[in-house]
Order: sequence, then C-alpha cells, then structure tokens
Amino acid sequence: MEELKARIRAEGQVLGGGILKVDSLINHQVDPVLLYAMGQEIAHRFEDANITRILTAEVSGIGPALMTGLVMQVPVVYARKRKPVTMMEPVYVEAAPSHTKGGETLLMVSPEYLTAADRILIVDDFLATGKTLHALARLVTKAGAQLVGIATVIEKSFEGGRDFLADLNVRIESLAVIESMDDGQIMLAE
Amino acid sequence: MEELKARIRAEGQVLGGGILKVDSLINHQVDPVLLYAMGQEIAHRFEDANITRILTAEVSGIGPALMTGLVMQVPVVYARKRKPVTMMEPVYVEAAPSHTKGGETLLMVSPEYLTAADRILIVDDFLATGKTLHALARLVTKAGAQLVGIATVIEKSFEGGRDFLADLNVRIESLAVIESMDDGQIMLAE
Repeated sequence: MEELKARIRAEGQVLGGGILKVDSLINHQVDPVLLYAMGQEIAHRFEDANITRILTAEVSGIGPALMTGLVMQVPVVYARKRKPVTMMEPVYVEAAPSHTKGGETLLMVSPEYLTAADRILIVDDFLATGKTLHALARLVTKAGAQLVGIATVIEKSFEGGRDFLADLNVRIESLAVIESMDDGQIMLAE
Repeated sequence: MEELKARIRAEGQVLGGGILKVDSLINHQVDPVLLYAMGQEIAHRFEDANITRILTAEVSGIGPALMTGLVMQVPVVYARKRKPVTMMEPVYVEAAPSHTKGGETLLMVSPEYLTAADRILIVDDFLATGKTLHALARLVTKAGAQLVGIATVIEKSFEGGRDFLADLNVRIESLAVIESMDDGQIMLAE
C-alpha cells in the first residue's frame, strides 16, 4: 500500500532495540482517512472469504480492525487485556508476552462475541514476533470458530513472525513490510 | 439518536452499582456501521466548530472518536493510560479516578500531537461523573489548545457529570441520555 509506505518513510522513527515509532500514524495519533484506506485494502484482500467477525487486541489494533469492519460491514471484537467490570466469566483467556513491561499480557474474549459459527479475520497493527497474533488465533480455536486469515498494517519481517504463525495454516497479509531497520534506516519491501 | 437508543434498550444490561453493560455495542464488541452513524451525528452537531483534532482516551473512546474523525477528516489522538516504549518525555499528564480498579488512572498525551494551534473536540464513550472528561480537558488546557466541545455516546445524567464539567464552559453533546437505571430499568430521555 503505497500511501502507507510513504507515511512510514516520512514519519517512522527507529528507536533502537528493534522498536519502530509510528505514534503519529497508528499508536497514539491516528489518521482516520488513511486508516479507512487500510480497511478498504484489507477488506479487498479478503473479499471472497465470507468473514463474519473481526478479532483484534486492544489498544492499537482497534483502529485498523474497525475500519476493516466498516468496509466489510461485520462486527469487530477487541480482546481485553484487563478484565472490565462488565465482563462476566467464563471468558476465553490466552497469554502473550508483553511488549512494554516484560512478563505476560492476558488476552480475554467473552464467549458471547466469538462463537463456533464464526469465520474470523484477525486484524492488528503489527506483525513482529507473531506471539500476540498467535494468542488471538488460539482464542479463535478455543471458541470453535474458524480462523480464515490474519491482516496486519506493518510487518517487521526480520522478526520472523510469519514463520512462527505457519502452524495456523492461514493466509497472512500485511500492508507494509519492513525488511530491516539496521543503522536506524527503515528498509521497506517493494 | 434513535438507532442507538433502540440498541441500548435491546442490548444494554444493568449490572447494579450504576454499571451499564453495553459490551455488545461499544466496550468489547463494536458495530462499525452503528459507530459510523454516531460519528456522522457528532460531526453534524459540531460542523461549524472548525475542529482541527479530536482527543479521546484509550480504550473505549477510540471507536466513536475515530469515526467522528473520519467524517470530519481530522486526526484523532488517544490519551494513553500506560506509557508505551515509543512515548518520549516530556508528556502532558493528568489523573482521573479509575473505573475498574480503584485508585487513579493517568492520562498521557505527547505534546507532538496536541498543540496551541488546535481547536479540540473531546469524544468519549460515556459521560458519567465527568472526571475522565475533565482530565482530558485539562490536558487540552496544558497544551494551550482551545477546547471547543465534548461529545459522548451515552450520558448517565443521574451521575451529575454535566454539572461537574460546567466550569469548562463548552458545549456538551450526548447521543443517548439515560436518566435512571433504578430496579434494573434503563430509562432513556426522549
């Protein structure tokens, strides 16, 4: 997606430790018009997949997931990382490593919003190690739903997430692929 | 907004302790099409206000804020409650009482995305006590930006938030107003 790649080139900052700052685009400020274009592109790539629901994780997956859901006209569910007072047990729970604080983050989804009748597309902001996405995929399995595919905004291919997710045997689409960030330089795939 | 009120009547659950569960609509699962209609309505109510940026708080404010931003074609900033590794100091910080765990939640915004040139609309899911919205308003003041208005999806008028926010002296719009939830009955204003 050329517009996204241009924005990553212009606004992305490599912070060291393999961290890409895209706070002006995705993680703190979002551009709703660009986000909608992402949603259109993801919906287009899965247009024949009969998706019934989209699953993402709070917080930064919500934007791209919502816009994809708007284009596809299907509900969007975001896995919670902290159990709100309105969330009743039983819930489906899976753990993923926390990016920001070490340790583990729990991802929780209510069985009310993830059912055996669903054909699920997982949408998230980043594909890095793939561990959060894998945890989301396990939630889909727990619910007896069918995982149809995974779509992410930015893939850092050098972190190997695509291989880590290979056992899921589903189509994985990314809108921009970063092949390396050595010496602070963002190298995007064509 | 009649469609929203109908959905609250059909799907809202009063959990006791003044808590309204709308997890199927706003807080865990979202309906992007309904959310877009909310965004259109909020944008319509502030169409002559020359808004340059929308401010919300993670997590559940993001949906309505994004859709309003999509209609208005302005950027959306969500205040972070936990400082991500990509967020550099200095940041603007204000505290609000935490709904879910007692104590305080910090709301953080980077000065990069909230500037003295901005005319800000705050968008959030609930207007209850008004304390989170007031904290967001103080972030706007700290940045030297102008707060133009506040828009929320659901107002629980019996919690007095509108009075609490009176000192801000800005227009406050809600798409659905709940006047009471006594005996588990959701009473919506006309």
